[in-house]
Amino acid sequence: MRFSFFPEEVDYFKLFEKQSHYIVQAAEAFKVAVAGGTLDTTALARIVTLEAQADEAARAVISQLNKSFITPFDREDIHALTKALDDIIDMLNTISNRLSVYKILEVKKNLVEFALVIEASAHAIDSAVKGVRDMKNYQVVMAACVEISRLENISDSMRDTALAGLFENEKDPIVVIKWKEIYEDAETVLDICADAAHVVESIMLKQA
Amino acid sequence: MRFSFFPEEVDYFKLFEKQSHYIVQAAEAFKVAVAGGTLDTTALARIVTLEAQADEAARAVISQLNKSFITPFDREDIHALTKALDDIIDMLNTISNRLSVYKILEVKKNLVEFALVIEASAHAIDSAVKGVRDMKNYQVVMAACVEISRLENISDSMRDTALAGLFENEKDPIVVIKWKEIYEDAETVLDICADAAHVVESIMLKQA
Amino acid sequence: MRFSFFPEEVDYFKLFEKQSHYIVQAAEAFKVAVAGGTLDTTALARIVTLEAQADEAARAVISQLNKSFITPFDREDIHALTKALDDIIDMLNTISNRLSVYKILEVKKNLVEFALVIEASAHAIDSAVKGVRDMKNYQVVMAACVEISRLENISDSMRDTALAGLFENEKDPIVVIKWKEIYEDAETVLDICADAAHVVESIMLKQA
Repeated sequence: MRFSFFPEEVDYFKLFEKQSHYIVQAAEAFKVAVAGGTLDTTALARIVTLEAQADEAARAVISQLNKSFITPFDREDIHALTKALDDIIDMLNTISNRLSVYKILEVKKNLVEFALVIEASAHAIDSAVKGVRDMKNYQVVMAACVEISRLENISDSMRDTALAGLFENEKDPIVVIKWKEIYEDAETVLDICADAAHVVESIMLKQA
Repeated sequence: MRFSFFPEEVDYFKLFEKQSHYIVQAAEAFKVAVAGGTLDTTALARIVTLEAQADEAARAVISQLNKSFITPFDREDIHALTKALDDIIDMLNTISNRLSVYKILEVKKNLVEFALVIEASAHAIDSAVKGVRDMKNYQVVMAACVEISRLENISDSMRDTALAGLFENEKDPIVVIKWKEIYEDAETVLDICADAAHVVESIMLKQA
Repeated sequence: MRFSFFPEEVDYFKLFEKQSHYIVQAAEAFKVAVAGGTLDTTALARIVTLEAQADEAARAVISQLNKSFITPFDREDIHALTKALDDIIDMLNTISNRLSVYKILEVKKNLVEFALVIEASAHAIDSAVKGVRDMKNYQVVMAACVEISRLENISDSMRDTALAGLFENEKDPIVVIKWKEIYEDAETVLDICADAAHVVESIMLKQA
């Protein structure tokens, strides 16, 4: 079944793609911000801007949804997908914010690794979102969702390793408090990517 | 469109107003509890009582909802609004609880400022909830929602400032642990107020 | 009204019972893991396995739900119950994970008490879930839900007592960070049990 059978003027898919585009850009900015070991505050500042733009795209979906009687697929799924996509970039913004509130300048290498996994997941999200509009992309979308789930599992171990190392080696409790939170937030980004992937999967399965 | 077109005997709006009334009272008690710099435990104890009463009002909505076939607006919105209103007072209760569990006697001035913003948001919630029953209040309700959103933005900066100051000036890690949580919870109150405002907005927009 | 009036081949109830069965086993393993005061890592490892099995049972419900047009009761309730049951065992898994990441060997006695309350709640969950398939079990199911709610209230005080003691007696901030989180997670298990009980109650009330 193709979604085009449904009479619907608003292109929700375009709005989702806008959201996932901002996610990719924010994930790339995050990678740049931490890659050098010393925090790149210019790259970090770009995430704030991107989050605001992504917010607008999410709001456009919700406001459209409130006006529409007919939607290309379940209203709840549209709502859940927009929310999950918005939550991803929100969490990236939260980490960036903590890095500056905590006045962190030197980036621990575990976070550099997290940034790479986050970037990979963001690209998979983008590819899942771009495919969801058409059932002919079924295989590609499902593969992207599997990849997102795989990256989420990896990030669980990464967080455990990072936390175990932190608690074992770091003697300053204030530093422990800061980095414990940053690592947990980094892992949460991957969790939310997995949530978004679940919504995409469920949309695909219902149309299959 | 007026809600009165719908045949419905239960006055959900009255129940929502009961909830928002308790929120205002709890927010005022919280302001009194922290205003003097030294914790006023009598005012703090009142929040516990108010939370229990608010809980009952929320339960009345849910139990009514389970029995109703026809509701004045979307069941999900009724559920979401009751839940968000309940979450606001729950979080005020959580902060009060932490203040006593952590045996905090001296109140940091950042929390006094938070209490004022929380009180302002509680009043805006009350005015939004009182208006939602009738589309003729559209402007008033929407203005209250905008105000709640503005206060939430302010509270973000307040939390960042409070945390940055805490991590910079406080040398005792145990104190950092306690106050970090209290500031974050205080900001969460404003977040939940914004959630409630979004539900109210969406109810209004669907009827517009 | 009996659910059997509805034409539905899939036995969702059996799947729920599978989930609650794993919950009981995980809660028992958790009790064994902490009972001796020194961590029993073999019992702890069993929780990881049980969580993976429970995950599969939850996925079976969701995948079935995506394919079904007719369900024995509200789709949202099926989804919410499966999710809540899954969240219970997830949180037990999270605590076990933290205990090993934080390299905790000596178990504080407050956690031993928590394990007993968690086990009691798991048994009540199991009895509520087993009863929900038939209205003739109304009294038994409701009694189990009341018990779960009672245990949740007890766990609130237990957490407050445990945290107050921790902050008063423990001088090492790193230890405070670790155990604060473990106690809060333990209490969260009971919270999620209460969430599951609310879904069960609402399913029963709608059929009453």
